Amino acid sequence: MVPHLTTAHNGPINELEQRILESMPAIERWFRLEWMEHTPPFYTSADLRNAGFKLAPVDNDLFPRTFNNLAHEMMPLAVQAAMAAIEKICPEAKNLLLIPDARIANSFYLQNLQRLIEIFTQAGLNVRLGALDTAMKAPTRLELPDGSELTLEPLVRNRGRLGLKRFDPCTILLNNDLAGGVPRELEHLYEQYLLPPLHAGWPLRRKSRHFRSYEEVAKKFAKLLGLDAWLINPLHVACGAVDPGRPADLEAIRAQVDLLLTKIRRKYKEYGIADKPCVVVKSDDAAGIGLLALRDAKELDDAARLRPAGALPAEFLIQEGVPTFERMNDAVAEPVVMMVDRYVVGGYYRVHAERAAGADLCGTPSSYVPLAFAGAGQMPRAGGKPGASAPNRFYMYGVVGRLSMLAASYELEATDPDAENYP
Amino acid sequence: MVPHLTTAHNGPINELEQRILESMPAIERWFRLEWMEHTPPFYTSADLRNAGFKLAPVDNDLFPRTFNNLAHEMMPLAVQAAMAAIEKICPEAKNLLLIPDARIANSFYLQNLQRLIEIFTQAGLNVRLGALDTAMKAPTRLELPDGSELTLEPLVRNRGRLGLKRFDPCTILLNNDLAGGVPRELEHLYEQYLLPPLHAGWPLRRKSRHFRSYEEVAKKFAKLLGLDAWLINPLHVACGAVDPGRPADLEAIRAQVDLLLTKIRRKYKEYGIADKPCVVVKSDDAAGIGLLALRDAKELDDAARLRPAGALPAEFLIQEGVPTFERMNDAVAEPVVMMVDRYVVGGYYRVHAERAAGADLCGTPSSYVPLAFAGAGQMPRAGGKPGASAPNRFYMYGVVGRLSMLAASYELEATDPDAENYP
Repeated sequence: MVPHLTTAHNGPINELEQRILESMPAIERWFRLEWMEHTPPFYTSADLRNAGFKLAPVDNDLFPRTFNNLAHEMMPLAVQAAMAAIEKICPEAKNLLLIPDARIANSFYLQNLQRLIEIFTQAGLNVRLGALDTAMKAPTRLELPDGSELTLEPLVRNRGRLGLKRFDPCTILLNNDLAGGVPRELEHLYEQYLLPPLHAGWPLRRKSRHFRSYEEVAKKFAKLLGLDAWLINPLHVACGAVDPGRPADLEAIRAQVDLLLTKIRRKYKEYGIADKPCVVVKSDDAAGIGLLALRDAKELDDAARLRPAGALPAEFLIQEGVPTFERMNDAVAEPVVMMVDRYVVGGYYRVHAERAAGADLCGTPSSYVPLAFAGAGQMPRAGGKPGASAPNRFYMYGVVGRLSMLAASYELEATDPDAENYP
Repeated sequence: MVPHLTTAHNGPINELEQRILESMPAIERWFRLEWMEHTPPFYTSADLRNAGFKLAPVDNDLFPRTFNNLAHEMMPLAVQAAMAAIEKICPEAKNLLLIPDARIANSFYLQNLQRLIEIFTQAGLNVRLGALDTAMKAPTRLELPDGSELTLEPLVRNRGRLGLKRFDPCTILLNNDLAGGVPRELEHLYEQYLLPPLHAGWPLRRKSRHFRSYEEVAKKFAKLLGLDAWLINPLHVACGAVDPGRPADLEAIRAQVDLLLTKIRRKYKEYGIADKPCVVVKSDDAAGIGLLALRDAKELDDAARLRPAGALPAEFLIQEGVPTFERMNDAVAEPVVMMVDRYVVGGYYRVHAERAAGADLCGTPSSYVPLAFAGAGQMPRAGGKPGASAPNRFYMYGVVGRLSMLAASYELEATDPDAENYP
């Protein structure tokens, strides 16, 4: 079962799907050449929005924490991709230390960890869990809904190396976006592979930097296919550090909102889309989809809508709101593409019943039902009617997901603090 | 649905399965290290025999022609493996010329070609079929059972390059074991990648050389797991070029048969197997499973059983007969593991109803029903009872299949006529 589009404006998407299918060998070759020049992130997920008239990633996660949502049939693909990733990074690898996100305590997250352990064990590693929690002094057992258990162990820092008691890993895999800051235990680990690197975490990452890279990637790709890049690229503008409490700063944000709305309006006109454009204001330096959806700069009348009074200056990203017109029955369905190394290993829809106008533009829904993609996105079917073939839609999603991953690769290269140390 | 073993002698196999499961990360790491030193063949299939008391490959095909037998769900794995293979060999690759086996005209083989085209197209290549048939002057259409068509085109040799009219491939993939000799068109192609290399074809390949490499691989692997290598290795002896029509040569073959039977008898005794040992005499330099199964050297009373009178001297391999005790209902079921690059991409059982004593030892059955493996062999389940879990059995088959592939890699390195040109 696959969601359907609840919009008549699906001409451009059907044309995009058609073009992507026709160009498949060229697209795959293009990715291959890009991966010769750029290193894919270790793992990535991309949140997409299908508006019928455009399809774009609105978020890119370098610490994907929802492997539990993949269909079980996709696991062999994930194992194979993990094998390829390890072989490239550290073929001699024996032990992998996985550092979870201690802030997430629900059973879905534990299942995600269980999946990751399964994937990397089957790729040939001994995997153990280390807790970024200095208060933890002894191994702690975590019980899963199926009755199985995971053991979280205290980290042991030994001069230049991080490990567990009697466990010295060559690779440390973070499943923690470091939103709380970079813990001392993770600093100066020059003897081990720390993946993803520290600058992929929120203390250093900026969404605006990512979307700047994405724009570059989208333009290259659009050129390859002879398309308008806007069809896959959400427009954006970065505000830098501002204090919405200061009238001048608030006015500057409003001006940016207005400018971006004007740009989107122009594109809507070009494509004959009667809908009212919308932008989403997001934190530039923190996870999460959005703070506020605006259809008019005037709606930004109160600074408190962006930031509690007295808060410190903050960084914002203003991004084109890409509406979601995919519905599963009446519920909104938003696709998420999961990748390991440079491979799509599956995906799922976040299906949630909220139907308010802004609900599909802002915020990650606090509750959703995952619906695993029935296919992995590698098996499009030539000849399928545009918009009507699930394998073809998954393939298109996989391509756009990979564009998002490639953008993250560009981004991480540009922001690498040790870049000058490389040959 | 999975075949069952019709033998009480399944202790050693269950123990092997248990040992392989327990050692999974170590096994995967061992393969990873082996692939650092050795290049996997482009694609491989391995025919296995499960006797309950041992599990061994009895044939290794470097030009697998049965991709049509894979479950459709396994295709994404094959695509991903093909991507990895291409990336390593020729990342800039755009065009792939696939050269089929012109001798096989049935619709199963056409479906195999269709599958290969699908896999490599989705891995990002333009794939076309070139005919090794100098009589072909114009493109020929071949119709498939589903109504689709393949086009076979005449080869165009242009100085150092081989291609088709207006199609210049950087890689040429042989799906033809060259049993009829190496055609002139394929010689001296120094500017293009020819895969597998010519010395993988029957004019140069020797089964005895492969099984010598396999023995080496099996010993290494058995040492890693603390096992008796015999549990995965079929004993063998090569006869070299002999003329069975000459009494002295026939006597020499008989002596070898007797010696090998004695060795097997000793192993049977060690493992308490009451069955009568058996050897299979095979052509050392041609495809095909076997010519003759013998339980006693005396049975080799007539040279004509090996070679028609007046035939030229020939090369033979005498191999331990590994009986097949896997049955699907009453029919014999023999597993085949399919691999692309260093990855298992699936497998199938050849299910055939012949039940004569020798039928399961000699010859590839002329007719069989393929039964695709329900899983790909990457997802064993810890805790499954030995011999009772299909995912665990497929994993074990995948491991032994990869040992056979690794042996082929050793073999191709040892027999490479250009080896001295490498750094």
